Amino acid sequence: MITRSQPYSLQENFEFYIQRVNTYLKKIMGDNPDAPYGLIEPMRYAVLGPGKRVRPLLTYASAELFQLDMKLADPIATAVELVHAYSLIHDDLPAMDDDDLRRGRATTHKKFGEAVAILTGDALQAVAFKVLCTDPFLSKNPITQIQVISLLARVAGPSGMVGGQLLDLEAEGHMIDESSLENIHQRKTGQLIKAAIMMPSKLANSSENTMENLDKFASNIGLVFQIMDDLLEAEQNTTTLGKNAQSDIRKEKSTYPSLLGISETRNRADELYEDAMDYLESLGENAAGLRWVANYIIERDR
Amino acid sequence: MITRSQPYSLQENFEFYIQRVNTYLKKIMGDNPDAPYGLIEPMRYAVLGPGKRVRPLLTYASAELFQLDMKLADPIATAVELVHAYSLIHDDLPAMDDDDLRRGRATTHKKFGEAVAILTGDALQAVAFKVLCTDPFLSKNPITQIQVISLLARVAGPSGMVGGQLLDLEAEGHMIDESSLENIHQRKTGQLIKAAIMMPSKLANSSENTMENLDKFASNIGLVFQIMDDLLEAEQNTTTLGKNAQSDIRKEKSTYPSLLGISETRNRADELYEDAMDYLESLGENAAGLRWVANYIIERDR
Repeated sequence: MITRSQPYSLQENFEFYIQRVNTYLKKIMGDNPDAPYGLIEPMRYAVLGPGKRVRPLLTYASAELFQLDMKLADPIATAVELVHAYSLIHDDLPAMDDDDLRRGRATTHKKFGEAVAILTGDALQAVAFKVLCTDPFLSKNPITQIQVISLLARVAGPSGMVGGQLLDLEAEGHMIDESSLENIHQRKTGQLIKAAIMMPSKLANSSENTMENLDKFASNIGLVFQIMDDLLEAEQNTTTLGKNAQSDIRKEKSTYPSLLGISETRNRADELYEDAMDYLESLGENAAGLRWVANYIIERDR
Repeated sequence: MITRSQPYSLQENFEFYIQRVNTYLKKIMGDNPDAPYGLIEPMRYAVLGPGKRVRPLLTYASAELFQLDMKLADPIATAVELVHAYSLIHDDLPAMDDDDLRRGRATTHKKFGEAVAILTGDALQAVAFKVLCTDPFLSKNPITQIQVISLLARVAGPSGMVGGQLLDLEAEGHMIDESSLENIHQRKTGQLIKAAIMMPSKLANSSENTMENLDKFASNIGLVFQIMDDLLEAEQNTTTLGKNAQSDIRKEKSTYPSLLGISETRNRADELYEDAMDYLESLGENAAGLRWVANYIIERDR
């Protein structure tokens, strides 16, 4: 195991940020006065339940890098988390990964039925865009606001997250090589994680060099996140994980551990993490928050 | 049967508009170079197959009312049709309405499987937003562009279309009263139809009075559309309709004919149509296109 940089000393800030995004998410869930309760209830269940909020943390940390007003980060962190939540609901459906358990609780379709789960995901995607369109702080600059919305639409679409999920389904039942697996992960989880980091940069006047380094950091850390997910699933049991462990094996999905073995997978994550840290180096002291979240990602145990 | 206003003399224009939106839809489907073919194929199947294109026609007719450059109407017509197409895919799923036939062809999940159908719908929703974000003509005015995107996000969300679909599911198996049925229809189909008409008005400097009358026209015509849909389903057979006739009866859904009877339902549609025409009256000669589409809606036989 390599020696990692010291944990960011402002860890308490991140607990504050988690509370902050949870508050905003709760506000947004209450912001649909005409919506039927039969839809609001599962939306709240899926969005406000336990979750690591890694994507929002990355957004706030990136906003710190650019010294943005955190009010601008709130709607972005929220929209990204809503898209993530919707994707989990649909991924868990019987026709997809068929998972009963998520974050230690019944999946949305197990609790509310399949039809409601499909609609809940559909609704959350629309709400994610609504949040970005209607936020009063983002709206002060419609040009950068459009850039942010556009990036979300791109990474959530057929070339991004949904395309990755399709490739993931197609890859079930047979082994694929490492570059195909990386392609799936980069689309399925990597692009949204990258967007969480890059969206605040659209609101800042940052240099091309900064954007490039941040972009490379974001690509690496997105992949580290998914590799750690694969590792945790391979190593842990259902209770610790909060979802059905070994579910990838049951579905004959290729994962990093199944392709490279546990030890080599961990080396791969460490290499990517080290490179990610190198890219951050040039971004100076304000990147401390991003460094902290990257640490959290590679050291998380659930 | 009441006497209706003369058919709009420029019917050929509307065939031109249908071609126009089909061309734009085709271009957009080809605009996802990195997307897996396994997703692009069902997207094209669902979007480019036969369809009445009523919503795009309403958008072009509304753009005529405001004498907008039709290049501004293209992305709006396209985005609305994409949201409509995605909603049909998800509505037809086994967990929802469980329909095998749509527009005379196998539904998306019958042809490509359930998982792919869910993802295809998800992808199309994201693409709808991407179209509005990236269109070069809409982008010339980011302020009105945001207003248009915001309206789409609202009508597609939990207070609009998805909320209506949820209420529709909840209403299955028992009779509901007419006002509940109207509430379902207004959300499930009415709001998107209304948005198709109102979105061009965001791009124009129209008076409050014009907006009000157009808004009332749009509400009425949205409801007429759904009532005619109910009537056609009650009266026709599967071949003519291109979807399984009597499917509402099979699912014990309340419809206008089941609540009011065929003849009273037709009277209701005629009344709403007449009121809609009255609202158009004040909008002058440029409303001829909207008049034509309204005629088409109440006289359509499939």
